[in-house]
Amino acid sequence: MAVPEGPFPPRSRPVHRWWSGGADRGDPGRLEAFSDGVMAIAITLLILDVHVTQHDGQSLAHALREALPEILAYAVSFLQIGIIWANHHALFRLIQRVDQVLLLANLLLLACVSFLPLPTQLIAEHTHGSDARTAVLLYGATLAGCAFSFNVIWHYANRQELILPGLSPLFHRDLTVRYRVGLASYAVAALLALLLPWLSLALTVVLALVFLLGPSPRQAFQGPTTSS
Amino acid sequence: MAVPEGPFPPRSRPVHRWWSGGADRGDPGRLEAFSDGVMAIAITLLILDVHVTQHDGQSLAHALREALPEILAYAVSFLQIGIIWANHHALFRLIQRVDQVLLLANLLLLACVSFLPLPTQLIAEHTHGSDARTAVLLYGATLAGCAFSFNVIWHYANRQELILPGLSPLFHRDLTVRYRVGLASYAVAALLALLLPWLSLALTVVLALVFLLGPSPRQAFQGPTTSS
Amino acid sequence: MAVPEGPFPPRSRPVHRWWSGGADRGDPGRLEAFSDGVMAIAITLLILDVHVTQHDGQSLAHALREALPEILAYAVSFLQIGIIWANHHALFRLIQRVDQVLLLANLLLLACVSFLPLPTQLIAEHTHGSDARTAVLLYGATLAGCAFSFNVIWHYANRQELILPGLSPLFHRDLTVRYRVGLASYAVAALLALLLPWLSLALTVVLALVFLLGPSPRQAFQGPTTSS
Amino acid sequence: MAVPEGPFPPRSRPVHRWWSGGADRGDPGRLEAFSDGVMAIAITLLILDVHVTQHDGQSLAHALREALPEILAYAVSFLQIGIIWANHHALFRLIQRVDQVLLLANLLLLACVSFLPLPTQLIAEHTHGSDARTAVLLYGATLAGCAFSFNVIWHYANRQELILPGLSPLFHRDLTVRYRVGLASYAVAALLALLLPWLSLALTVVLALVFLLGPSPRQAFQGPTTSS
Repeated sequence: MAVPEGPFPPRSRPVHRWWSGGADRGDPGRLEAFSDGVMAIAITLLILDVHVTQHDGQSLAHALREALPEILAYAVSFLQIGIIWANHHALFRLIQRVDQVLLLANLLLLACVSFLPLPTQLIAEHTHGSDARTAVLLYGATLAGCAFSFNVIWHYANRQELILPGLSPLFHRDLTVRYRVGLASYAVAALLALLLPWLSLALTVVLALVFLLGPSPRQAFQGPTTSS
Repeated sequence: MAVPEGPFPPRSRPVHRWWSGGADRGDPGRLEAFSDGVMAIAITLLILDVHVTQHDGQSLAHALREALPEILAYAVSFLQIGIIWANHHALFRLIQRVDQVLLLANLLLLACVSFLPLPTQLIAEHTHGSDARTAVLLYGATLAGCAFSFNVIWHYANRQELILPGLSPLFHRDLTVRYRVGLASYAVAALLALLLPWLSLALTVVLALVFLLGPSPRQAFQGPTTSS
Repeated sequence: MAVPEGPFPPRSRPVHRWWSGGADRGDPGRLEAFSDGVMAIAITLLILDVHVTQHDGQSLAHALREALPEILAYAVSFLQIGIIWANHHALFRLIQRVDQVLLLANLLLLACVSFLPLPTQLIAEHTHGSDARTAVLLYGATLAGCAFSFNVIWHYANRQELILPGLSPLFHRDLTVRYRVGLASYAVAALLALLLPWLSLALTVVLALVFLLGPSPRQAFQGPTTSS
Repeated sequence: MAVPEGPFPPRSRPVHRWWSGGADRGDPGRLEAFSDGVMAIAITLLILDVHVTQHDGQSLAHALREALPEILAYAVSFLQIGIIWANHHALFRLIQRVDQVLLLANLLLLACVSFLPLPTQLIAEHTHGSDARTAVLLYGATLAGCAFSFNVIWHYANRQELILPGLSPLFHRDLTVRYRVGLASYAVAALLALLLPWLSLALTVVLALVFLLGPSPRQAFQGPTTSS
C-alpha cells in the first residue's frame, strides 16, 4: 500500500500522510482545536444530567438536597475532564506531526471523554448496593480508558518519531513512568469499585489532583546550562 | 447580477465575493473553524442518545447489557464523524478560496453530519425486523449524503478554480477516483440495508477504516526531484 | 463616567475600552470566535428537536414519514443559521474595533440565533390552524430580530467609527440598503404568517438564498484602477 | 516536589510548569480558547430549558404566554454569561502565564458558568412562594461563585507574578476594587433573594449592565504622555 513519493527516503513513513491533520504544516494544530472542542462540549453537557425532581408537596430546598449526589457527580466529572484537557494540551505540545493511526488513537481518547457523562449520571442515580458498584466500575473503567489512550498516543508517537526532536531522556522517562502509573492507578481505582465504590470514586479525584498538582516531569529540553 | 469591479477581468468570478468566508484573505480559515465546531458538537451530542433504562427489579448491570446496541451505535457513529472530520480537514487544505456556492455545499455536508445522531439512535432502537432495515437504510443514506457533499465540494471547487494551483494531475485523479468510489460504496452499503442491515452497518465501518488507513493519494505537489 | 486617558483627545471614545473584546489588539478576533462557537452549537442542537415517535404497531418508515415536518424544519433552520453565520462573518471583516455597546448588540444577535431552535420545534409541531400561524409568526419574528441586530451593529459601528477606514461610499450605501431591505423583508415575512403561514416560511427560505446568492455589494475598497 | 531546572533561579516558580496550558509559549491562548468554548456552549444550552407545554385545548399563543418566565430567564442568563465571557476576556488579556493552580481556579469559574442553566430553569419554574426564594438564592449564589472565582484568579495571578509586567498601579487598584465590589454586590443580591426574590434577580441584571457599561478601570499601561 506504500506510495513512493520520490527518489530519496523521506524523513518519516510516507504512507498515511494525506489525512494527517496538519502534518504538512509541521504541527497538529487543527487536531488540538477539534479535541478542545469535543472536551469543552463534553464538560458542559454534564449539567444536562443534573435533574432536580420535586415530588408532590415537597419544597424545592428538599428536592435540591436530594439532587446533591447528582451535583457532586457533576463537580467530580467536571474536574476529571478539565484535568484530562490540561493533560492532552501538555502532551500535544510535544507532538510534531500527526498520522492517521495517531488520529484514531486520539479519537479513542475523545470517545472515552465524551462517554463520561453516561457513567456520571449512573453514579448519581445509584448511590448504594450492587448497582453503585456497577456504576462506579463503569466510571473508573472509562477513566482507565482515557489513561490507556494516553499511553497508546505516547508510545505510538515515540515509535513513529512524531515527537519533537531534542527531548531530554530524563523528561522522556518521567513521562513514560507517569503514563504507566496513571493507567495502573486508574485500573486499580476501577477494580476497587467492586469492594468500596465510594472509596474508588474518591481515589479517582485524588489521582486527578495528584497528577495536576504533583511533581512535574523533569525539564523537557536540555537548554544551555546558563539561561541569560 | 454581476457587479463590475474594475477595468480588468479579475482572476476569478467577481460575484459572490462579499459573503465568501475568508476569500479576501486567500484562505478558508473561518469556514474550517465553523465546520470543526459543528462536527465536534455533533460527535459529542451522540452520547445524549445513549439511555440506560432500568426496569423494576432489574440490576444496573443487566440494564447496561440491554443498552449495548446503543453503546455500539455510539462507537460506530463516533468513528464515522471522526473520519469525516479528518477527510474534511484534508480536503480544505487544498482549497484556496471559498465562494457562496461552496459555502452552501459545505452547509449540506454539515447538515448531513449533524443529522447523523438521529439515525444512530434509530439503529440502536431497532435491531431486527423491517424497522432495522429502515433504520440502517436511513443511516447509510445519511453517510452517502456526506459522500455526495464531498463530491459536490470537490467538483465545484475544481470547476471554479478555488483549488490551490500546482496540484499534481496524478494526485488530482486519485482524489477524484477516491470521492467517486466513496459515494458509490456508501450508496451500495445503504441499499444493502434492505437485505442485510447488520452487514450494511459493518460495511460502513470497514469503508471508513479503509478510507482512513488505506492508500493515500499520490503526492499532491510535484516537488523538485531531489528533496535536500 | 468618562475617564480621562491623556492630554490629547483619543481617536475614538475612551470610555468602555477595558471590556472591549480585543479592541486593544485592533481586531475583534475573540468576539468572532465566541460568536462562531455559539452559532455552531445552535445549528447543531437543532437535531435534538427532531423526534421520531413510533405508535403501537406502527412501522418505523411510517413514523419517519410523520416526522417529515420536523426534518423539513431542521433543514430550513440549518440553512438560516448557516447563512446568518456567513453574514456575520462578512460584516465583522469590516469591523476594526469593538466596544461594550457593540458587544451587547452582538449578544442580542446571538440570543436571537440561539433562540431559533424553539420556534423551529414549534413550526414542526403545529402544521395547521391558528397554532401554525402563531408558530410561524414567532419564527419570522426571531429572524426579524436577527435582521434588526445586524442593523444595530452596522449603524452603531458606523456612528462610533469602529469600521475599517477607507470603505468605498458606494459599498457603504449598498450595505446600508441591504440591511434595511433585509429587516423590512423579514418583518413582512413574519406578518405574512398571520395570513399564510407556509408561504411565510417559504419566503424566509427564499430571502436567505437571495441574500446569499444574489448580488454582492459593490467593491468594499477603492483599489487602484489597474490591478497588476 | 520542586524540580531544579538550572543553575539560576528562574523568574517564577519552576514547579507545575508542564501542565500549564501554554506557559512555555508565554501566553494563555489555549486556556482562553477552551474557556471560550465552554462559555459558548453554556450560553447556547440555555434554550434547551425553555419548554412550551400545551395543555389540552389550549392555544399555542396561550402556552407561549405561560412560558414567558422561562423565556425571560433565558434572556437574563444569556446576558449574564455574555458579560462573564467579556469579563474573562478582559482579565486574561492581562495574564502572561498560566500555572496549574490558576488552571484549577479557572475550572472553578467554568464550573459555575456551566452550572447556571440549572438555577436558570429553577427560577423559571418557581415564580412565587418559598420555592422562588430558594431558586433565586441558588441563582445568585452561582453568580457570586463566578465573582469569587474571578477574585481568586486575579489575586493568585498577582501573587505568583503571572500578570503582564508594567501594569499601572492605578489600573491595578481599580481592578482589585472592581472585583471586590463585584463579589460583595452579588453576595448581597443572593441574600436579598430570601426577602424579595424578584428584586434580587433584577439586581443581578443591573449589576451585570453596570459592570459592562459603567466606568472602565483607569488606563492599564502608563504610556507616553503625548499619544501622537
